[in-house]
Amino acid sequence: MNYRMLIYLLSVILLIEAAFLLIPLLVAVIYGEPVLPFVITVGILVAVSLPGVLQKPKNTKIYAKEGFVTVAASWVLMSLFGALPFTLSGVIPNYFDAFFETCSGFSTTGASILKVIEGLPKGVLFWRSFTHWIGGMGVLVFMLAILPQGGHAIYLLRAEVPGPTKGKLVPKLRHTAIILYGIYIAMTAAEVISLLIAGLPFYDALVTTFGTAGTGGFSVMNSSIAGYNNAAAEWIVAVFMLMFGINFNIYFFILIGKWRELLRNEEVRVYLSLAVISVAIICIQTYNSFSSFGECIRSSFFQTASIISTSGFSTQDFNAWPGLTKMLLVFLMFTGSCAGSTAGGVKISRLLIVFKNTLREVKHMLHPRSVNTVRIDGDPVSEETVKSAVNYIALYITVLIASALAISVDGFSFETNFTGTLACLNNIGPGLGNVGPSGNYAGFSIFSKIVLSFDMLFGRLELMPLIILFSLSTWRKR
Amino acid sequence: MNYRMLIYLLSVILLIEAAFLLIPLLVAVIYGEPVLPFVITVGILVAVSLPGVLQKPKNTKIYAKEGFVTVAASWVLMSLFGALPFTLSGVIPNYFDAFFETCSGFSTTGASILKVIEGLPKGVLFWRSFTHWIGGMGVLVFMLAILPQGGHAIYLLRAEVPGPTKGKLVPKLRHTAIILYGIYIAMTAAEVISLLIAGLPFYDALVTTFGTAGTGGFSVMNSSIAGYNNAAAEWIVAVFMLMFGINFNIYFFILIGKWRELLRNEEVRVYLSLAVISVAIICIQTYNSFSSFGECIRSSFFQTASIISTSGFSTQDFNAWPGLTKMLLVFLMFTGSCAGSTAGGVKISRLLIVFKNTLREVKHMLHPRSVNTVRIDGDPVSEETVKSAVNYIALYITVLIASALAISVDGFSFETNFTGTLACLNNIGPGLGNVGPSGNYAGFSIFSKIVLSFDMLFGRLELMPLIILFSLSTWRKR
Repeated sequence: MNYRMLIYLLSVILLIEAAFLLIPLLVAVIYGEPVLPFVITVGILVAVSLPGVLQKPKNTKIYAKEGFVTVAASWVLMSLFGALPFTLSGVIPNYFDAFFETCSGFSTTGASILKVIEGLPKGVLFWRSFTHWIGGMGVLVFMLAILPQGGHAIYLLRAEVPGPTKGKLVPKLRHTAIILYGIYIAMTAAEVISLLIAGLPFYDALVTTFGTAGTGGFSVMNSSIAGYNNAAAEWIVAVFMLMFGINFNIYFFILIGKWRELLRNEEVRVYLSLAVISVAIICIQTYNSFSSFGECIRSSFFQTASIISTSGFSTQDFNAWPGLTKMLLVFLMFTGSCAGSTAGGVKISRLLIVFKNTLREVKHMLHPRSVNTVRIDGDPVSEETVKSAVNYIALYITVLIASALAISVDGFSFETNFTGTLACLNNIGPGLGNVGPSGNYAGFSIFSKIVLSFDMLFGRLELMPLIILFSLSTWRKR
Repeated sequence: MNYRMLIYLLSVILLIEAAFLLIPLLVAVIYGEPVLPFVITVGILVAVSLPGVLQKPKNTKIYAKEGFVTVAASWVLMSLFGALPFTLSGVIPNYFDAFFETCSGFSTTGASILKVIEGLPKGVLFWRSFTHWIGGMGVLVFMLAILPQGGHAIYLLRAEVPGPTKGKLVPKLRHTAIILYGIYIAMTAAEVISLLIAGLPFYDALVTTFGTAGTGGFSVMNSSIAGYNNAAAEWIVAVFMLMFGINFNIYFFILIGKWRELLRNEEVRVYLSLAVISVAIICIQTYNSFSSFGECIRSSFFQTASIISTSGFSTQDFNAWPGLTKMLLVFLMFTGSCAGSTAGGVKISRLLIVFKNTLREVKHMLHPRSVNTVRIDGDPVSEETVKSAVNYIALYITVLIASALAISVDGFSFETNFTGTLACLNNIGPGLGNVGPSGNYAGFSIFSKIVLSFDMLFGRLELMPLIILFSLSTWRKR
């Protein structure tokens, strides 16, 4: 383990967090709110990180192990420090609650312990939503974009960008990171402008966009997007949620004129097909509860886009919807969206690989001497990738069951425990039962909140980095 | 595909079913009940099977494909014909309901659509419980025990006996089948005698034992085993449920004096440890609802044994128990018991392999050049077995989600849909919510009942046989 490099990288990350915190500090200044919570947090971050940043090690080489550990430790530290403004401002007096809310923010989950949001300081709420935006594309990708990195920094990118198929878009790693953030910023700007045109105030347009871009789901309204009572805004948010759930590589290919990549991408096809089928079913099932067909379509589309993109914004309390609709939403919670997007979930490409692998196994049983390859987009998938996708599902189920079991000590219903864990692990936010769109996570014990906090980070980083961080054998000398 | 052999084997199976039906027919005679439902069913079975049985093909060679197809088709046909006595006797007028009840019987699930059981004809109820006993060890294993089979009949054994590690106990396949059935019959006799000593009437001792031996769970009392109000009987049933959930190979090794096999068997150790931990937790959680410590232990032990062995007998309505206890039971529903037993579930050995494989993957990520092998009982597990265990989990989750989604059209709660599907797929019987110990499956639509019927067969045959039966490419000419 290259400890010096680990400390250096973590220090840089915390310094970047300090820099990010200057923006909500500015918001607090503009609205004449107390700035001390932010000033203190920035001060602590600078004091903690500066010594490390100033001592850049000579040996900057890192490998897979360092990559995983750096990413996992960064996210845990960022959440630990990022929770301070909530507690210092008194908005969330209990530090563990604040930690939950910050993990929820960075991991782009959007699960909240706040019961009343309207009326809270705008600076703090800005920070709450801004964590979504930071966590969406990833703070290490951001670092790779702004700082030139030597030796094997690809391991950082690999550990932070979700999905089974990851790699560089262009030969230079730094350029890849810049392109990803460039697309991210451009799409963010497009949504802010659209929401302004739809009539949202600038502040609301901005925080709503942060929640959409990171596919997070924190809102500054008690009743989420429904609070704006603005049909145009609902359409805009829904379309952008769906777009932020698509692999960013696709946008890059479109930018450089390779439109065909979009058409031959199976994952995007399945993602959009699932969305269309789901909208149709929900529309049929909930038709009677709406006054017009347009309203029904809008609500069905919004809820589908919100869940499949793992955002978790809501305009309806789908907890009160019929059985099939609820089950369908739980299914979409599980699948999630595309790899390489800002969204969570198991990822459709991973499920596609597992599904095709199963078909292959059946074929192999029938014709033991036949040789079949799993193909995605027409290209063969390596056996290593197939294996890791199938293993991922097994590991994922283990974490899901263990967490649901752990939080059931609080005595809530099976529905609440199961969908709450699923909604946190898949970075969605609302589940069913007590944690449905009209509920929240405040009722859980501190123990359960800590379990769910780590579930959110587990989900965002796709299990392995945190498992390796907490694995004894990582720290054992060989 | 060796069609002649397929038809021959299926005919033999149906003739065996006709022979089995003579026993409930006898019971009906003894109790002076109408015998026509049984006579007609036996007549139809003989008429259908006799032409096939008389034409034994010259080429008796079968391979994996024929093995899977024969086993899957046998179970579907046996359930289709086995449902007739229920409908012909008027006990279950709707044939689809009767099919559900029969699939539930043969698959040793114990999920019922009957609301009132006491007072129904004893012959029909005997058949209902007897299907558990037949399904427990498997009718094809029975056939292998009574009829000498040529060419590759091992594929039949492999496709019907549950679990990832299967093989012959002794060099001769027929002897293996005889040993398995011998142990099965001896343990059945032991339980019947024990229950007689505890004071149960002979008929009740017999049907209760069928439900225990097959780890099925059908009872002839409305309130299951609680209806006998007999503490000794509860202890006996609980201990035998736990015993029937253990790999039968262990009993064979004990019989031939190899006691050490029991001690070095990891699966049994984990199985019994899970049971002990679960009893302790349930006892602590439910302590206040019992009048004495003995009663609390008895109930906790009974419910744990019932669920982990996937039997589904009940003495308490655990649907009303606290959150952690319910979640724990759902977890045990998922794990199930040991491979090579009469019980269902994912099987502990399979989960052990998957878990150890995950640990290995983590190690491999940390030390890419290290070579690790998954070991069970100290012996290395082949990569082929590891792969198939991991794939099984992925396939299992797919079937679980698809089924839960399908039955949610009926509009029941998430808890009912999810645990109902889990309880059917894992051959347990009762779930939570509407399908809890005090509820039943009568409320589901015909469509959902068919889905759940096949889930039960899917679970009992461990997915692959039925998938191959229904796979188009099985029937396509090459």
